[in-house]
Amino acid sequence: MSAALSAAMAAAPAAGRAVPPAMLAALGDRLGARCSVALAVREQHGRDESPIDAPPPDCVVFAEATEEVAFVVALANEHAVPVIPYGAGSSLEGHLLAVQGGISLDLTRMNKILRVNAEDLTVTVQPGVTRNQLNAELRHAGLFFPIDPGADATLGGMAATRASGTNAVRYGTMRENVLGLQVVTASGETISTGSRARKSSAGYDLTRLMVGSEGTLGVISELSLRIYPLPEAVSAAVCFFPSIDAAVQTTIQIIQMGIPIARCELLDANSVRAVNKHDRLALREAPMLLMEFHGSAAGVAEQAQSVQEIAKEFGGEDFDWATTPEARTRLWAARHHAYLSALQMKPGCRCVTTDTCVPISRLAESIAESVREVEASGLPYFIVGHVGDGNFHLGYLIDPEIPAERETAEALSAQMVARALRLEGTCTGEHGIGLHKQGFLVDEAGEGAVAMMRSIKLGLDPRNIMNPGKIFTL
Amino acid sequence: MSAALSAAMAAAPAAGRAVPPAMLAALGDRLGARCSVALAVREQHGRDESPIDAPPPDCVVFAEATEEVAFVVALANEHAVPVIPYGAGSSLEGHLLAVQGGISLDLTRMNKILRVNAEDLTVTVQPGVTRNQLNAELRHAGLFFPIDPGADATLGGMAATRASGTNAVRYGTMRENVLGLQVVTASGETISTGSRARKSSAGYDLTRLMVGSEGTLGVISELSLRIYPLPEAVSAAVCFFPSIDAAVQTTIQIIQMGIPIARCELLDANSVRAVNKHDRLALREAPMLLMEFHGSAAGVAEQAQSVQEIAKEFGGEDFDWATTPEARTRLWAARHHAYLSALQMKPGCRCVTTDTCVPISRLAESIAESVREVEASGLPYFIVGHVGDGNFHLGYLIDPEIPAERETAEALSAQMVARALRLEGTCTGEHGIGLHKQGFLVDEAGEGAVAMMRSIKLGLDPRNIMNPGKIFTL
Repeated sequence: MSAALSAAMAAAPAAGRAVPPAMLAALGDRLGARCSVALAVREQHGRDESPIDAPPPDCVVFAEATEEVAFVVALANEHAVPVIPYGAGSSLEGHLLAVQGGISLDLTRMNKILRVNAEDLTVTVQPGVTRNQLNAELRHAGLFFPIDPGADATLGGMAATRASGTNAVRYGTMRENVLGLQVVTASGETISTGSRARKSSAGYDLTRLMVGSEGTLGVISELSLRIYPLPEAVSAAVCFFPSIDAAVQTTIQIIQMGIPIARCELLDANSVRAVNKHDRLALREAPMLLMEFHGSAAGVAEQAQSVQEIAKEFGGEDFDWATTPEARTRLWAARHHAYLSALQMKPGCRCVTTDTCVPISRLAESIAESVREVEASGLPYFIVGHVGDGNFHLGYLIDPEIPAERETAEALSAQMVARALRLEGTCTGEHGIGLHKQGFLVDEAGEGAVAMMRSIKLGLDPRNIMNPGKIFTL
Repeated sequence: MSAALSAAMAAAPAAGRAVPPAMLAALGDRLGARCSVALAVREQHGRDESPIDAPPPDCVVFAEATEEVAFVVALANEHAVPVIPYGAGSSLEGHLLAVQGGISLDLTRMNKILRVNAEDLTVTVQPGVTRNQLNAELRHAGLFFPIDPGADATLGGMAATRASGTNAVRYGTMRENVLGLQVVTASGETISTGSRARKSSAGYDLTRLMVGSEGTLGVISELSLRIYPLPEAVSAAVCFFPSIDAAVQTTIQIIQMGIPIARCELLDANSVRAVNKHDRLALREAPMLLMEFHGSAAGVAEQAQSVQEIAKEFGGEDFDWATTPEARTRLWAARHHAYLSALQMKPGCRCVTTDTCVPISRLAESIAESVREVEASGLPYFIVGHVGDGNFHLGYLIDPEIPAERETAEALSAQMVARALRLEGTCTGEHGIGLHKQGFLVDEAGEGAVAMMRSIKLGLDPRNIMNPGKIFTL
């Protein structure tokens, strides 16, 4: 257990935060079986994809409408009980753990796509809609939503963690693609932030404040998002390199030249080996870039041509094109399985994942030193990276039964973060702070900035009911 | 005077907010002649481009370093005296007016470009650097900063009002292009928000909270910005249309097709007439789109071809290309002079400017009805618009000696905003709330959201010293 997590758990008041019987009765009266205290349901909602364990929430509520969310939150505020918004459960940083007890508020039944405004390239959805569900709906209209964190996360959860992923190099992150939100505040009031206009200077940017707030400032109950026309042409290709450095140098040059590449993903040889096994592929087990180009047919050809020339300079082999949509889908599925595939390389293992992001010119140094350190440690690992953004994930595969392995992984992770901060980067490009990176947040932002965050939190949630103990402790 | 402004002025405590003699002495001790109480200096800092009059600040301080900003703010906080950050003075909404007295903090001497990181496409600047100054410096390195609000504003001021302008349709606004800030908080502490990484999920998005906060949450003392490679090819063209509606329909289709146009500006016949006169041009006095395309040579040709076909459908004439950089500069200079040119069409007039922004599909309706109303009123007016974003400005030219003209203009403006909100848009795309749009902010965001803004303000600036009375009153 990390120091930050120990602190978070220690900070939980021993009593007074559990759901009191009167509140449970009120929830049951209004929601019936959609308020559950069954252990299996609580346990399912008491974990996420992080390697952290915590006791489950006291109860799980399945909301079906904003009014119900408002009812639950107002009641929780009255009783000073924690509320943890829950979507797909794919957090990697312990966001969903009930470290101070309370209610897990499951929003997956609020999964309606409310409006597609094709002519404005906007869509309005409930928070439980997943990105694959949305894209399946949009495809018929020749549209898509680009943000792709890998997991089929809910859009509410993606907004709450400021998610990004493979397409961010071209389309930005949730930060750039949320137009406005409906939010249930800690007092149970429902407010709107933003509009459907593409830009606005109307007061404080509450939308951007909520995006990335990890459920600590309110519950996102509706989202208006930017969507995009499906490109006229899409091409994907893989290219293999003699070293990780060569692949990264290629990426750096692509970005510096302003080539509008849509996706530019690095997989190290370990990751390629893992996905080969998991997805029955026969990719060469060498550092690989998986790239995608969007645009007009001529534009895509031009981008691909430029990128091939750059890759060749750094010893990259000829592109292997995924010419059919099926071949493309198969490659991206493999990329999305990289995390699970890697876990299967060491049966029974858990994964400590890093998420640093640095200015692109420092990326090669950042990766090279991290690889040197993990190689020296002897821990198995893998690397996947949204390298076009300067962001990569190094996963340390640890045996949960051997505390020394976790300690080694945590120490390596801390070294990586310290380096990323020295290189003017961030400890988390897209996974968020949650429980696991609270110390890193202070290192990165400084005590003064974190104090400012706390002051905002106290102003908007004076009883500290919204996902308490995440991002920072009060 | 609008109702909101009257309220703001009325809310100013009659006493206790003026700079006390002890404080003035302390400022003089440290800053010497850079703390001025000369009437001419105060009057120059007591107005902006808005049509609003207010008494000047009690004194003007010219800061030359972050430490001086911190000193001034800490002192002001101790004495509960207002501090109004001042840049180029180009606000259109009364942001710079000393409605509660206090200090105008002039940051124009903090005008150093601190670092250009060409390889990362980032730059770090002091807040008094103007956009033209920055672009003159970047040009040698083949780079540019795209945000262009027209005026040669300071980058600190542009961040504070979440400015955008002609290039936003392709490159986004200040919201998307500020990576991180150094901020002097209301207590005089210096903090950093963000890093030089392209993305981050590290805690609340304090950067985006500061961008657009209009100086009410702290003083921006340093900015890290995204910059871009100068495009390989740039082409600009004008095209004339039989009606505003035809020009707007052309724009809507360009956006809906996802054509990556870099600039797409509407000028109505009144604006064209004004710039013809002011800049000695001979443009056809008809609704006009002024467009620019960025990309590879082939890419630009392809975009231009697609746009010409769309324009033709709506009765647009053949493109008139500005083939040389000089011709292009001349056209954009004329566009940037539109506001001043229009003022000269009615000598001695002042301008009440609107700034609504709506989803693109509602833009034609939004403009058509606004034109119908202003035509019926008999007031002279002009329209310029960043129509690719759904944003346009209708300027009402009023005689400041005839109160009825101002009342008519304000009434028309209120009708426009009400319509924009009905159409799911915003009362301000890029100018900000300032003094003039406080009532509209409540209409748009709702009491709950504005209460949330107030709560943030009170948490971060409990003595209400930072640009008090702007955005909302406390």
